[in-house]
Amino acid sequence: MNYRPRPEDSRFILNAVLDAPPRLRALAPFAEVDEALQSQVLEEAARFVAEAVAPSNRDGDEIGCRFADGEVVTPPGFREAYQAFVDGGWPGLSAATEDGGQGLPAVLEAILYEWLSAANHGLTMAPGLLHGAYACLKHHGSDELKARYLSKIATGEWLATMCLTEAHAGSDLGQVRTRAVPQADGSLRVNGGKIFISGGEHDLTPNIVHLVLCRMPDAPAGPKGLSLALVPKVLPDGARNAVHCERIEEKMGLHGSPTCTMRFDGATGWLVGEPGRGLAAMFVMMNSARLHVALQGIGLLDAAWQKADAYAAERRQMRAPGAVPASRGGEAADLIAEHPAIRRILDTQRAWIDGTRTLAYRSALMLDMASHDADPKARERAQRWCSLVTPVLKAACTHQAFHGASECLQVFGGHGYVREWGIEQIVRDARVTMIYEGTNEIQAIDLLVRKVLPDGGAGMSAVLLELRDALDASREADADAQRRLAQLRYLGTTIAMAAHANPVLPYEVADDYLRVVMLAMMAWAWARIDAAEASEAERAARTGPAAAFRRWVLPEFDMRLGIVKRACEGIAMSHDAAKTPASAS
Amino acid sequence: MNYRPRPEDSRFILNAVLDAPPRLRALAPFAEVDEALQSQVLEEAARFVAEAVAPSNRDGDEIGCRFADGEVVTPPGFREAYQAFVDGGWPGLSAATEDGGQGLPAVLEAILYEWLSAANHGLTMAPGLLHGAYACLKHHGSDELKARYLSKIATGEWLATMCLTEAHAGSDLGQVRTRAVPQADGSLRVNGGKIFISGGEHDLTPNIVHLVLCRMPDAPAGPKGLSLALVPKVLPDGARNAVHCERIEEKMGLHGSPTCTMRFDGATGWLVGEPGRGLAAMFVMMNSARLHVALQGIGLLDAAWQKADAYAAERRQMRAPGAVPASRGGEAADLIAEHPAIRRILDTQRAWIDGTRTLAYRSALMLDMASHDADPKARERAQRWCSLVTPVLKAACTHQAFHGASECLQVFGGHGYVREWGIEQIVRDARVTMIYEGTNEIQAIDLLVRKVLPDGGAGMSAVLLELRDALDASREADADAQRRLAQLRYLGTTIAMAAHANPVLPYEVADDYLRVVMLAMMAWAWARIDAAEASEAERAARTGPAAAFRRWVLPEFDMRLGIVKRACEGIAMSHDAAKTPASAS
Repeated sequence: MNYRPRPEDSRFILNAVLDAPPRLRALAPFAEVDEALQSQVLEEAARFVAEAVAPSNRDGDEIGCRFADGEVVTPPGFREAYQAFVDGGWPGLSAATEDGGQGLPAVLEAILYEWLSAANHGLTMAPGLLHGAYACLKHHGSDELKARYLSKIATGEWLATMCLTEAHAGSDLGQVRTRAVPQADGSLRVNGGKIFISGGEHDLTPNIVHLVLCRMPDAPAGPKGLSLALVPKVLPDGARNAVHCERIEEKMGLHGSPTCTMRFDGATGWLVGEPGRGLAAMFVMMNSARLHVALQGIGLLDAAWQKADAYAAERRQMRAPGAVPASRGGEAADLIAEHPAIRRILDTQRAWIDGTRTLAYRSALMLDMASHDADPKARERAQRWCSLVTPVLKAACTHQAFHGASECLQVFGGHGYVREWGIEQIVRDARVTMIYEGTNEIQAIDLLVRKVLPDGGAGMSAVLLELRDALDASREADADAQRRLAQLRYLGTTIAMAAHANPVLPYEVADDYLRVVMLAMMAWAWARIDAAEASEAERAARTGPAAAFRRWVLPEFDMRLGIVKRACEGIAMSHDAAKTPASAS
Repeated sequence: MNYRPRPEDSRFILNAVLDAPPRLRALAPFAEVDEALQSQVLEEAARFVAEAVAPSNRDGDEIGCRFADGEVVTPPGFREAYQAFVDGGWPGLSAATEDGGQGLPAVLEAILYEWLSAANHGLTMAPGLLHGAYACLKHHGSDELKARYLSKIATGEWLATMCLTEAHAGSDLGQVRTRAVPQADGSLRVNGGKIFISGGEHDLTPNIVHLVLCRMPDAPAGPKGLSLALVPKVLPDGARNAVHCERIEEKMGLHGSPTCTMRFDGATGWLVGEPGRGLAAMFVMMNSARLHVALQGIGLLDAAWQKADAYAAERRQMRAPGAVPASRGGEAADLIAEHPAIRRILDTQRAWIDGTRTLAYRSALMLDMASHDADPKARERAQRWCSLVTPVLKAACTHQAFHGASECLQVFGGHGYVREWGIEQIVRDARVTMIYEGTNEIQAIDLLVRKVLPDGGAGMSAVLLELRDALDASREADADAQRRLAQLRYLGTTIAMAAHANPVLPYEVADDYLRVVMLAMMAWAWARIDAAEASEAERAARTGPAAAFRRWVLPEFDMRLGIVKRACEGIAMSHDAAKTPASAS
């Protein structure tokens, strides 16, 4: 069973829960993008994903990418699927029309990528960095570079990579050693090795544009000495550049995406942005790239849920306690969907999917507003949301993709562990999303240490107050969500005070803090879903997940809150003790 | 890096925490098995596992088992390793000496299998069912069958399988359809198909003894109509029996163990035990088999932890907050072991390993006491412990094996997702342990619905009181554990009352209840570890894990307790409401 997007599910979140259509039309570039057009784009995207992208997912895993003599052959069906993707204009969905894009909202592109990842994570890795490379070049590239590369990238005619990691420099990019020496003609000569480069080499496009983090002569040590170079596989004169793929990794999953070890052997490149500002140039796309990883997580979980849900509606084992005899139809055993343990798994994962979709689609909407809102204050608010919520979603959605897919595997019993049903592939594929684009531990530190604490929690408080104001306290779920948002605001202050006494503390509670934020926001999301106008069928489909959310997901909020508070209290007590004379004895 | 058992770690739990040596010597068959002999056996086992078993683990995964024309070729090195296992007398470690075994305690065999699984889970599957087949045959086999098969199985000269599952009968064995028709010569003619048969065919031993769950003519439908047949691959006269392997599964992991689809095509077999008592005959070994799966989980987690711990002590990335400058040795970055997020992963998994080892080794000790204690009351107490604690350990240790191994993978960052370091193999291999020998959901139902509730919680209460009495309330950790054990006793009563009003409720809270039991018992285990006599080095090695246990593991207790209590209160409220006249309006 291949994944098939259900546009009605995404549209319910987008329209009924988030009221997106009028908010998008209020933005100047999307004045013509009414609800009907949005729906039409989503319907076409769903059809394209189901028909052109999903079918090669299995071969992507089973056959995978093959490497020989520096060349990578992608799995059967990938070339054709990618070509259809380009022909359909999908790569440039949100790119500017003057660059050959469609000029549509980022939120529609976000949904497209969620579905693409659900249908074929391996193939989707290929264009996954296109939008980031496009934004990077558009903001930081010279006019000459833009003229040569921007529309090729916007349309997906040429694919792009981000060459960051080196063997000794993973999370710690300050240790990057690849060198770039300026030449008389204004180009750079690039030497060095990179690892874990997704799509570093392949047969999908005639050229590949590498964005390479490197160090120019006399650059200071550490991250401030890093520059960014554009290094194409094929030079403008048609000659092959000195860029080589040395091997591809054997991985746990994601076999459809070649993870390349690259060697730059005196390759020709050009500077993007200022020397020493390489990280800044790359970080322009970080929120959007990380949000896309969160959406991969949501998509993969939805794909796993679809499989498990379908299996549970067919497989019969044992009598279910409390099952309605009428549903048995003379069978010797009940559907496993009627067994409470299975029901719980399905409803809990559905609760995660709908809740995280609400937050992720809202974030994508904020990307649109950050770029296009006429009001600078609104742009700033949207930017603040993206900055604070993106690491939360990246970590939580990818965590849930792996763990939730594993739960869905459990629905199959022993059949889940064999390849036949395709569910174990999702578990293996999903695992990497917890690592790339910054490990989930790095996301937690980014959130708490780099973003929440530096302004004493003011930015996060403002976000939480916005969320609070969107709730109606006369509804029970809303009042509960408001209480949690308030607890979370108070927690920020508690941590800030404890961090004053012990600067290591924030690093120790960062993971738990991120979970508290996520669960408070999930409470908000589910309160909004509960309150949304829905058809009877939509409401019925969400009764189980809503109950599962309150019963099994939300209790983690208090647990994590307690963990963080006790850690802070421990600091406060030892700090107080250190100040009293008695403790000196 | 191959797994290497650390006998000193297991001995600390066995001797210092559980005081096992005198308790074992008090049992008649082990009067000569003093602490020195126990230590010697463990030292030899550790050497054997490290030298003979661990090296072929990687080929087991990468090359795996190959199938062609009904034959299975095991991975390179497996035949030699298995032969060394037989030659060393390891298969019969706890089998009776009169059957060719070593007559040693089950607890030593348990530790051996934990290490074997850690070193090479795939290979260990082959002899993994030997002990169960031995016990089954010894208790239920006719004298003729025993004469022919018992010592062959005890010594591992011939391997054995359990043929239970059929395509439509997984968790629901009552649906088994394989037929066995009695013949004039007293044998059975067996026809039918079985799936997911571990070691159904292989090249490790010249004969394979299948124990086949089947249905005799005119047997009633359901589980009470099931019988057990012994069906050898090679008949006593040397002829090949009509038992065929049709294919082996492609699995997520455990590639070193052939998972076979078997066809019995008028095969010759013999009845084991009474007709219609097939499940009872198999269930004699269930506690020991499930405990062994729990030990697989502990072993796999320890293997993952060893790898991650070693990597974290070599890999440097970024400055760690609060790292001692002296440890830096002039390096540009600190060891990742000094980063709080990594420290947390390592210490938390270590907390699980030591805590679950304490409980699993205690369970194995109870198996010895249940068999050999002179006092019938003591045997009964030991049996009660095994019955109640085994499903808890099976579910919790296998859950932690998969989830904890995934955490250990995270320590490697991107390097964890590639095959090179071997950590992702552990995650894939471990996943199946949550499914086989009864899914973890089945374990939870077995615990609460089949074991705790039928006697109104009396048996579980007795176990918890025993644990309470082994604690010293003047110690803080002990008092905390006592409080949790008391809460757990009370919870049993709460569930029993709510179940009276709603018989479905126990199925809905079974998973959470099992976790509450596990965490209360872990609190007990860590209180015992804290109180154990330990060298300075042993104490230092456990400071971090002890703190991690209290900080990050134990808070789940209150969360799960709350989930179960709220579910029960919900029932009580709706029950009360149903009784009041007002609710009728």
